[in-house]
Amino acid sequence: MKDRLIRFTRGVPPTESFDPDQLVECTKSVLAQYSDVVLQYGPSRGFAPLRQQLAQQNNVELQRVILGQGSLNLQDMSARVMLKPGDLVYAENPSYDRALTVFKRAGGLIKGFPLEQDGLNVDAVEASLKSGDRPVIFYIIPDFQNPSGTVLSFEKRQRIANLAREYEFWIIEDSPYRNLRYRGQDVPSIFDLAPDRVFKMSSFSKLICPGLRVGYVIAPEGMADPIARWAEDSYINSSYLNQAIVYDYQQRGWLEPHIQCLKDLYRQRLDALLKALDQHMASTATWCRTEGGFFVGVTLKANVKADDLLKRAEGANLQLSDGRNFFTHAGGDQFIRLPFCALTPDEIEEGVARLAQVVNTF
Amino acid sequence: MKDRLIRFTRGVPPTESFDPDQLVECTKSVLAQYSDVVLQYGPSRGFAPLRQQLAQQNNVELQRVILGQGSLNLQDMSARVMLKPGDLVYAENPSYDRALTVFKRAGGLIKGFPLEQDGLNVDAVEASLKSGDRPVIFYIIPDFQNPSGTVLSFEKRQRIANLAREYEFWIIEDSPYRNLRYRGQDVPSIFDLAPDRVFKMSSFSKLICPGLRVGYVIAPEGMADPIARWAEDSYINSSYLNQAIVYDYQQRGWLEPHIQCLKDLYRQRLDALLKALDQHMASTATWCRTEGGFFVGVTLKANVKADDLLKRAEGANLQLSDGRNFFTHAGGDQFIRLPFCALTPDEIEEGVARLAQVVNTF
Repeated sequence: MKDRLIRFTRGVPPTESFDPDQLVECTKSVLAQYSDVVLQYGPSRGFAPLRQQLAQQNNVELQRVILGQGSLNLQDMSARVMLKPGDLVYAENPSYDRALTVFKRAGGLIKGFPLEQDGLNVDAVEASLKSGDRPVIFYIIPDFQNPSGTVLSFEKRQRIANLAREYEFWIIEDSPYRNLRYRGQDVPSIFDLAPDRVFKMSSFSKLICPGLRVGYVIAPEGMADPIARWAEDSYINSSYLNQAIVYDYQQRGWLEPHIQCLKDLYRQRLDALLKALDQHMASTATWCRTEGGFFVGVTLKANVKADDLLKRAEGANLQLSDGRNFFTHAGGDQFIRLPFCALTPDEIEEGVARLAQVVNTF
Repeated sequence: MKDRLIRFTRGVPPTESFDPDQLVECTKSVLAQYSDVVLQYGPSRGFAPLRQQLAQQNNVELQRVILGQGSLNLQDMSARVMLKPGDLVYAENPSYDRALTVFKRAGGLIKGFPLEQDGLNVDAVEASLKSGDRPVIFYIIPDFQNPSGTVLSFEKRQRIANLAREYEFWIIEDSPYRNLRYRGQDVPSIFDLAPDRVFKMSSFSKLICPGLRVGYVIAPEGMADPIARWAEDSYINSSYLNQAIVYDYQQRGWLEPHIQCLKDLYRQRLDALLKALDQHMASTATWCRTEGGFFVGVTLKANVKADDLLKRAEGANLQLSDGRNFFTHAGGDQFIRLPFCALTPDEIEEGVARLAQVVNTF
């Protein structure tokens, strides 16, 4: 263990959570039933039966559901459809680094709002809007936020939903971790509160496996057609085969028990992480006591520089993400994202002990 | 037959050419051997063993091979990496409608060069370059061109390759149909002549099935990294599962005999089309006597308007693509793209007979 590199880097599920035999079963049944459709080109919105499942689960019209090669790809297209160069995009600060890149590439100017224990600072958002800012998109990860682990409170979700209606901005609600709550109670989604203003994005990457690359967006009425057209002109269609596998998997009733297994596995790992942090870093850092998802965001008290921190961590056989990448502008030197799902409790304990030692050298 | 709608629209393979049992076999073997890799996130360039196969087949370094969700998607990303708004893009005129859209969306200004029986007019290209035009990209489909069916002659390929070196533009050589030659001899690819200036794009959509969505680009040195980075920031990675299925399919030696079957099937259909055209339209149209691919491009002699033509065709239970979509600017009213692979010889004969009747009403 001591000699082994420990990676607190990307948020990936553990390979032991994959069940290849189940996927072989689904592939067989899908190719027996739907080969003419799933092996051919098709409409860009994706395999209709999976879209129907999602439409039903989310209580929306079928045409609003678009499947794609993971939800990031759908965010990329939504950004390209919605943004002109110079348009304002609101985001939490810190936020998911890849999503920020997608908005910037589409010409968006990002304005970040600081996170508190119960999610983003809505007073600051309201002040910005009142001062005349007119964002086109507000990108929010309300459930077990990436990278911090925070959950946006119900009261703040209501305020955001109301502001979106009043100031007519779109909300991209990115919720890949929503179904992975290990304790506590679900909070209604922003989509539930303002379905007319919200692009609900999610995927099966964290629930079945990333390799299928099946994500989805539920777009507001009137916005689904332009995204579907953009998708068609970008890649004709995503893989119906993979989408049909997800459909079949759900149809067999395998998704719910699988999520239950994941929760049991990840809960132990989260607990190991929180315990190790309490034990080793109580005096040197603060963090979010998250109740789900993939990440705990840690903020160091010491005035460290990220380059130095990453280098010293490497010396201790510990790989960290650069905290600055999650921040919309300056900042992030003292921020560390700790993904815990793909590490065993022992690795987590060892990793945090190493991290604490590194931090104590500052 | 008389009552049945005949579609001469998109270039899709016939569903009877798919072999679902083979794909089940490949999926089983792939998930038995590589599940940890193919179900997880991975580097954006794609599943390494398939990339190695392609690197070997094309005699290039591994890092130059990038897999993606069909080759159109790789064109979209290449265009976004290479083009700034206002940059000049050369293309054949007519050309593949979706590719033209991709370049326009990335800010490209398209300049089209007319097609002759042996491919694009290179004298016109040379004159344009000499007059001071500086294209960033030249998009060419040299083999069984979409939508015309023409093949660019060897001599013209050499001239284009030399011009690319002299004037330092990139060539996107889109060759999805190259392996589908039904008679005659292969011509060396432009990539073979100038691998340093060419993005070679192709896919397995026309060789195995579109539903896997596996395409690839072989990028010039120095251009592969920026495309791979763009891909990672757009969708992390494409489906390794699907890429591994293609790898396994090739590894079993199934691809070559399958292509042989496709050629035997499509040759009959091409022959039926050329025979029907000779029989019904010799006096009213000209066309390319192609030797491969998916399309025969037909140019009507009558001065028809596309809207009128499409409407009258619909009245005869015949669906056509709008010829104008393939043209870079004005034009295309008299142009009809006839895809023949997904229609039986009887359907083709009936379709051309109906088309001739429609044309005779002008």
